[in-house]
Amino acid sequence: MKRNIYLNKLTLKEAQKIWYKSLLKYKLTEPLKGELVSTEDSLGRVTAEPVFAKISSPHYPAAAMDGIAVRARDTYQASESYPRKLRVERDFYFINTGDPIPFGFDAVIKIEDINPVDKVGQREINKKDIADDLTDREEGSIEEIIIFSSTFPGQHIRNIGEDIVANQLIIPINQKIRPLDLGALLAGGVNQLLVREKPKVAVIPTGYELIQLGEEVLPGKIIEYNSKIIESLISEWGGEAKVYEIIKDAPEDLKKILQKVCQQSDIIVVLAGSSAGSKDFTPEIIRSLGEVLVHGIAIMPGKPTILGIINKTPLIGLPGYPVSTIISAEQFLGPLVFTRLGLTMSKRQKIKVHMAHKVVSRLGDEEFLRVKLGNIGKKMMAYPLPRGAGVITSLVEADGIIRIPSLKEGLDLEEEVNVELWKDLDTIRHNIIVTGSHDLILDILRNELQENLSNYRLVSFNVGSIGGLIALKQNRTHLATAHLLDSESGDYNFPYIKKILPRKELVVVNLAYREQGIIIKKGNPKNIKDLDDLIREDIKFINRQKGSGTRILLDYLLSKKAINPMDIKGYFREEFTHLMVASAVAEGNVDAGLGILSAAKAFKLDFIPLAKERYDIIIPKEYYSSLKVQKLLTIIRSEKFKKEVLNLGGYDLSQSGKVIEE
Amino acid sequence: MKRNIYLNKLTLKEAQKIWYKSLLKYKLTEPLKGELVSTEDSLGRVTAEPVFAKISSPHYPAAAMDGIAVRARDTYQASESYPRKLRVERDFYFINTGDPIPFGFDAVIKIEDINPVDKVGQREINKKDIADDLTDREEGSIEEIIIFSSTFPGQHIRNIGEDIVANQLIIPINQKIRPLDLGALLAGGVNQLLVREKPKVAVIPTGYELIQLGEEVLPGKIIEYNSKIIESLISEWGGEAKVYEIIKDAPEDLKKILQKVCQQSDIIVVLAGSSAGSKDFTPEIIRSLGEVLVHGIAIMPGKPTILGIINKTPLIGLPGYPVSTIISAEQFLGPLVFTRLGLTMSKRQKIKVHMAHKVVSRLGDEEFLRVKLGNIGKKMMAYPLPRGAGVITSLVEADGIIRIPSLKEGLDLEEEVNVELWKDLDTIRHNIIVTGSHDLILDILRNELQENLSNYRLVSFNVGSIGGLIALKQNRTHLATAHLLDSESGDYNFPYIKKILPRKELVVVNLAYREQGIIIKKGNPKNIKDLDDLIREDIKFINRQKGSGTRILLDYLLSKKAINPMDIKGYFREEFTHLMVASAVAEGNVDAGLGILSAAKAFKLDFIPLAKERYDIIIPKEYYSSLKVQKLLTIIRSEKFKKEVLNLGGYDLSQSGKVIEE
Repeated sequence: MKRNIYLNKLTLKEAQKIWYKSLLKYKLTEPLKGELVSTEDSLGRVTAEPVFAKISSPHYPAAAMDGIAVRARDTYQASESYPRKLRVERDFYFINTGDPIPFGFDAVIKIEDINPVDKVGQREINKKDIADDLTDREEGSIEEIIIFSSTFPGQHIRNIGEDIVANQLIIPINQKIRPLDLGALLAGGVNQLLVREKPKVAVIPTGYELIQLGEEVLPGKIIEYNSKIIESLISEWGGEAKVYEIIKDAPEDLKKILQKVCQQSDIIVVLAGSSAGSKDFTPEIIRSLGEVLVHGIAIMPGKPTILGIINKTPLIGLPGYPVSTIISAEQFLGPLVFTRLGLTMSKRQKIKVHMAHKVVSRLGDEEFLRVKLGNIGKKMMAYPLPRGAGVITSLVEADGIIRIPSLKEGLDLEEEVNVELWKDLDTIRHNIIVTGSHDLILDILRNELQENLSNYRLVSFNVGSIGGLIALKQNRTHLATAHLLDSESGDYNFPYIKKILPRKELVVVNLAYREQGIIIKKGNPKNIKDLDDLIREDIKFINRQKGSGTRILLDYLLSKKAINPMDIKGYFREEFTHLMVASAVAEGNVDAGLGILSAAKAFKLDFIPLAKERYDIIIPKEYYSSLKVQKLLTIIRSEKFKKEVLNLGGYDLSQSGKVIEE
Repeated sequence: MKRNIYLNKLTLKEAQKIWYKSLLKYKLTEPLKGELVSTEDSLGRVTAEPVFAKISSPHYPAAAMDGIAVRARDTYQASESYPRKLRVERDFYFINTGDPIPFGFDAVIKIEDINPVDKVGQREINKKDIADDLTDREEGSIEEIIIFSSTFPGQHIRNIGEDIVANQLIIPINQKIRPLDLGALLAGGVNQLLVREKPKVAVIPTGYELIQLGEEVLPGKIIEYNSKIIESLISEWGGEAKVYEIIKDAPEDLKKILQKVCQQSDIIVVLAGSSAGSKDFTPEIIRSLGEVLVHGIAIMPGKPTILGIINKTPLIGLPGYPVSTIISAEQFLGPLVFTRLGLTMSKRQKIKVHMAHKVVSRLGDEEFLRVKLGNIGKKMMAYPLPRGAGVITSLVEADGIIRIPSLKEGLDLEEEVNVELWKDLDTIRHNIIVTGSHDLILDILRNELQENLSNYRLVSFNVGSIGGLIALKQNRTHLATAHLLDSESGDYNFPYIKKILPRKELVVVNLAYREQGIIIKKGNPKNIKDLDDLIREDIKFINRQKGSGTRILLDYLLSKKAINPMDIKGYFREEFTHLMVASAVAEGNVDAGLGILSAAKAFKLDFIPLAKERYDIIIPKEYYSSLKVQKLLTIIRSEKFKKEVLNLGGYDLSQSGKVIEE
């Protein structure tokens, strides 16, 4: 099989232009035809013709209030000094809201404004009292009433067509039906209407490495889930997806299925198989059946997108990496589904933000940078998330996406840029940014916060304890977490705070004391007993990154034992979290790593305790009394939180939630 | 049956407080319990527990690029001047993105960066050419390659857990699952998860005047459609509604059904039956089964809302008028559904707008004023829509809602206020405001615009021709429509423009010449032949409002014939549109009205032609060349538009779309 190398990548704009021109040529930019559905089933559908009212609403003159129907002329000149008496069933009828006005009557007086005759004169007129009293009377017993003001023809009457007049346009063409639209349609006597057919999208996953959900996950095998994402997106957009079986290593199968679906579908989506790997036969097959318009677009992620036409059916080849798939689908598939429905895909809300970090971007590619957002002081800051196309969690976590133009080399620290929001702005405003040392407690805290206050979000960045203090210094975080041992004093955090943040007013609150130690394989097959064993020839170690408290702890412990770090195989191999260290040991790549007990327990590994250390949360005074922080502290001090942390193992919570004084 | 009069209305805030306190007491503010669903079926559901990864992703070290797997040490020091040769299946393997890295190998070199040995030396090194060439080669034929740069361990390799590490929190509790979340869950080996049960809402319509959809619509009978609106809203919010049969005039039936559903439902909604009419037995029955917490809230619309609790089940009585129902549901039902799902209902986006009209509001009630919005010049202007609680079209048309506080007497012209958006801001920005004379053509124009440009909206206000010119003068409209006959000169519009807008630069474009005449009943039962018949004793007339071109035309024609308007019965009864005039004739309330032929035809009425008049669109020069207006003019000049207008009948389009010079 030949390899495909896309050498002449188009820009996104160029690709969109070529694509649009071709769609136009085959009349694929026109909306699909309509189908008749009953109004009751039309929610979320799009009108395929203007909808006019068949009847007026109200369709008869109706009382707009509860009260009595009268002839306005009978009330002429009535006033406090010239009251007029009306007799039931001759001069008035009791009437409820919505009742038809009796023939010959032309006005309604509200129930609150009528005065039963037997009440008047007995005492001073007090309308409130009378109305009060009327509550407890049977209407049947009222024979005569007195009114003290005149009324005019049409008062409190809803005329025919007051809401909708027959033949009036209720909903124009190309409009999505909302719940309240159903009311107007039914009120206007429209019981069925023409709505756009849902665009039928054939989704064909390809890739010899893919397995169906439920199959055994062996090395080299990847669960095929992109089809599920795309199917769900299509359904949210108003289309109807049909997902076909995975085409593995048989180009002929793909050819056959494409020949079939191009007869039945409005859009074809081929998943993966569009990068340049040797097994990627998709472009060749599309070319044999129709035309490839675009292959390779200068966007990142999303580069290996294919756009083509087979038998007048548009085909979109989405890249295999999940982030690429979604970004590319948003650019090409979404707009096409909307177009065929007669709609325009609405743009995401944009806001201005400031970069919390400098970002270097590759020239020549437009990058879709996923970011978290946090309101620090008066600025909305943007925190870049992992940039790999394979990191689906970067999209799950993303509050928004910043587009870095292809001719821009990156974004500067503090630079103001536009971000397209992927989450609700109100929720984003409730983000609490925590930067610093990693601990499994943070996941529990995040979860507890969201359980108690469903629109609050804890956002933690694992950059190590020193990184957390620096972020505080640079006003890039609300809070920091740290467990920095000062080897001279034996104290935690305060000596570092003094050095890094000498002038900042801070409150230090303990989260936990936790056990650090050597994480080793279950059953300790290599018989590791202490740090001394790490220098053995047969031991592969994995380290934490520079600046992390755990790395500082390791170096301190090694120096106390006069062990040369250079003698440890793997000392320079770094991971960023306790879980990643434990995972590496569990996967068998390495024999040992330094980390917390809870991480070892999560992977059911063995553990050699070395030290108990203080893990604190560091809070600037300016935020300490804020609602955000106080809510967080309430949770940290709650019994439920403590119970969950203790379940992880390796924590001493006796000081948890307490302010630590130096 | 007794009447209910709510005398001590609570403010919205007070009602919400009482409601929340009671919900809290019965633990009804806590989320519902969870149910296990397969991840594939979890779209749109809400997590009822934190979801942790079961496996890492990738779960094996995988190639991140198409290329070759190598040992980094074999590439040590390779450079342009010191190339290194690698042999297939000894020093490297071809590998595709996602493939596992062969045992003992630790780096990947991209396909674009390798150079087959037989190519090197034959000509000057040109990587692009070689890569090009490689495209056309079978990989099997490559035995040796040369590399010109070194690589490092881990290059282009996705490590285990690069995206998701086992035991990591993927999605916290209380979070709605989006399409892309499905990907992360499946990648993390999560095949099923605990999601919140959907809140079960029993919806019970009540009202003796209601009929089911499909039943014959007689006077006094109203199609029950509120249940359909509420059912759809509940489903959009994430709940599950069950709509029960209409309870007509039998309090016992309501009691029975309430006793049943309070055992099975999470929330009960009683529709209508909560105002103060004599047939509204709902409050009494709730009181007999449980407690009424709130009856009557100082909001408009939405006043007759009831809040209660039966057998620990919250009950919301929504008012009968559709706008009231929806507003009240948004205030009480929506938040409760969200709470029980563990979510917070997100607030609508707010923007600042300026009032295009003065609004007087009743003291003591918080009013939910529906408005259209239009970007006039640099200001977003708000146009109040009809304020009746029964006017569902006012919500259908609304771009947003302005809340007028209960202690505010109204809103001033130009006053800046907040509006909660009910439509997409991007679409709102594309509104084109047309103010002035009504014609059925405007519905067609609105529709054609939306058909051609699905995010553009034509918004027309029928205030008569004079009103349109005044709106132009006051910068309250983009465009005006008018057909103002100057009785002295016989000319249309220009004499009025000169008087009202002496200094404004305008372009006048003809929309149509149209036939005005007397709209009469089918078959002309009263034998009306000319205007002279209007003064007959047996003829009831209906007029158009003052300032409308049609009213001016009538007065002109009457004066020519020396008919005294005071002799016409109904001369002072006014309607605002041609359709309303035709509707009044069709319904039999009146015998004749002045209007356009197309309105008569829409109602299949007869018509006595009196005059052919010019109907123009008047465009300020500043907007004339704008995209909005040019798009509109393109449509006015299109054949399709003309064809549809001609279908209405009574139009001469020979000058349509042409600029009229004085």
